[in-house]
Amino acid sequence: MSAAHLRSAPPITEPVSQVSESERLARVNLSCAVEPGDATTSSLVRQLGAERALERSRSAAEGETGEMLAQRLAAVDAVRQLEQAARCGIRFLVPGDAEWPTGLDQLDDAVADDGFGGTPPGLWVKGPMPLTELATSVAVVGSRAASVYGVEMARAVCEHLALSGVPVVSGGALGIDFEAHDAALSADGVTAAVLACGVDRVYPAQNRRLLQHLAAEFAVVSEQPPASAPTRPRFLARNRLIAAMTNGTVVVEAALRSGALNTAGWAESLNRHVMCVPGPVTSYTSRGVNNFLREGRGTVVTHGAEVLELVGAAGEHLVDPPRGETRPRDELTRTERTVVEWVPVSEPAPVDSISRLCGLPLRTTEGALRRLRSKRFVQLADEGWRLAPDV
Amino acid sequence: MSAAHLRSAPPITEPVSQVSESERLARVNLSCAVEPGDATTSSLVRQLGAERALERSRSAAEGETGEMLAQRLAAVDAVRQLEQAARCGIRFLVPGDAEWPTGLDQLDDAVADDGFGGTPPGLWVKGPMPLTELATSVAVVGSRAASVYGVEMARAVCEHLALSGVPVVSGGALGIDFEAHDAALSADGVTAAVLACGVDRVYPAQNRRLLQHLAAEFAVVSEQPPASAPTRPRFLARNRLIAAMTNGTVVVEAALRSGALNTAGWAESLNRHVMCVPGPVTSYTSRGVNNFLREGRGTVVTHGAEVLELVGAAGEHLVDPPRGETRPRDELTRTERTVVEWVPVSEPAPVDSISRLCGLPLRTTEGALRRLRSKRFVQLADEGWRLAPDV
Repeated sequence: MSAAHLRSAPPITEPVSQVSESERLARVNLSCAVEPGDATTSSLVRQLGAERALERSRSAAEGETGEMLAQRLAAVDAVRQLEQAARCGIRFLVPGDAEWPTGLDQLDDAVADDGFGGTPPGLWVKGPMPLTELATSVAVVGSRAASVYGVEMARAVCEHLALSGVPVVSGGALGIDFEAHDAALSADGVTAAVLACGVDRVYPAQNRRLLQHLAAEFAVVSEQPPASAPTRPRFLARNRLIAAMTNGTVVVEAALRSGALNTAGWAESLNRHVMCVPGPVTSYTSRGVNNFLREGRGTVVTHGAEVLELVGAAGEHLVDPPRGETRPRDELTRTERTVVEWVPVSEPAPVDSISRLCGLPLRTTEGALRRLRSKRFVQLADEGWRLAPDV
Repeated sequence: MSAAHLRSAPPITEPVSQVSESERLARVNLSCAVEPGDATTSSLVRQLGAERALERSRSAAEGETGEMLAQRLAAVDAVRQLEQAARCGIRFLVPGDAEWPTGLDQLDDAVADDGFGGTPPGLWVKGPMPLTELATSVAVVGSRAASVYGVEMARAVCEHLALSGVPVVSGGALGIDFEAHDAALSADGVTAAVLACGVDRVYPAQNRRLLQHLAAEFAVVSEQPPASAPTRPRFLARNRLIAAMTNGTVVVEAALRSGALNTAGWAESLNRHVMCVPGPVTSYTSRGVNNFLREGRGTVVTHGAEVLELVGAAGEHLVDPPRGETRPRDELTRTERTVVEWVPVSEPAPVDSISRLCGLPLRTTEGALRRLRSKRFVQLADEGWRLAPDV
């Protein structure tokens, strides 16, 4: 996958799709009026289809919530919304579109205990990269208040992913999110941001350059219609999209109440890989990750290659288990190795004692000891043989 | 448990025991002639009893190994060994003695694939503390080349254990072992060292003061008879004793080929708790611990209290799950909390928009916004309400 190729691709404004115009407009209505994470509505959509669910929501205004939704629906002009979006280079994807990330459909089965969640009615996307590019992507998320260690790890993991052709998805926030996107870009890789506000907005303002670059060259994604403000519930809702659109979520650093752990929780509910970079237990920004691992959730990853091994297809990206450095002792013959094991580390022992200990004839033992001395493994003192220092 | 009480206890030279003198002498013979970790002999002892196993080993010298053992047995004077040891204040414990750590008996069922392991024929102990004191003990082990982080963590965990009356067991090496013993002592706690050499020897020499103090006031333990030299196989064999004599093993820092991981492996085979203090993946001395966790082995611990929770009896030492700091937001009323969630983080929104978002009447929303302003959660700008910075 070449980033250069992507950058030259024209914006996809009219994707090949079997979705009817009325279905799409119904979903625009729902997207504009329903708050993200409203699993009641998404379940209605799944049961009745978007058009009948919209009809029902417009008329059967039951209770305060129902009335509120009906009011909000009445205020939406879906055709105008779509047109305005298109003028800003923003497209609206729905299930059935070639670009639709099918992982999102699993969100209907992963609704949280409090009824929060569900598949969004659609996705607003700005940027030339088709979301199909994200089929093999990995989410890399973490604290906004990242430490030097976290920044280093996020960059190392994302650089490795980028160099292996694996797209990185993150949230566009300060800290780990920023580093994840930035490291992927630096390694000429592919990355996309999923936002809690409209894709035409920039939040946080410090990431303006990054977000504008992603919108111009890659993709910025949101279930919120253009112009929407970021609010806390929308951040939480956004986290489920990051988890669902990717093959796994890497949590690089997270304090105990970090939103990154919320994303990890969604990934877990969705049976995606949850990968955690552990950190010093004395570090505030690693407390959440370490505690997550303590609960037996998530797999420790210490390198991008270990991420690839987990999310890759079976047999792909296999990593040799880390082995530690080869030691000089590994180069010895079998006899030498047996003998050296039984040479005392401190006070010297005579050759017959070592011979008895290692169960080898006296002459064999003595020969091995002399060779070990020339290789500087052992020393001959007055009273016998002992290990050389640092062996 | 009071360390002062232990220090005033007289050395136990003649423990109450139903073990016959001939059985004890047979075990002295085996202890002096058989290399530790010889599971063949320990299995013979279990099947035939120590006396018949000794007889068999003396006579039926099959193969080179058998001959070697017979030769070594012929050289042992068990009565003299016991007398000499007693003169040095060293006692020899065997199964059936009141002081015998019964956890060691499980070693016969946890023999490694290469036939290494087994219950030792006996234990040589120097020091006034009866080993029954170790019934509730926890092993704390780790790298000799400890980092500042490792030292800090080992000391914090051992201090917590000591203050909770839980004895610490470790190996007497430099680095984490030293810090574990030293921190327990500093907190007026109880600690014992299990050595790979005879309990009358000091290895490493740098720990002379520590080991002499433990031998004088607490206990130093080895399966090796007095005067034995430390060799690599004896270190590996010693590790299984540390795992078997304790309720769990905490690995504080370990490089990839660390002996501490070997101890953790034994603890695992023995169904003891294996607890790992994770560390930065960029730290050489944490690579082994992190990799152990990556393999899904061991439980993350970040504090002594979490160690106690795991090794304690059910319902003892329960730890509240870490919760992160309480945030000012937690103090708000339910209505205020609902409203503040929907106030945009960046560009201001008018009150009617916030009222729609949070599903509360206009007047309720406005009242909550005013109270939130006086509590400095939100700001009123020209165009509407937004979150105060840092909320």
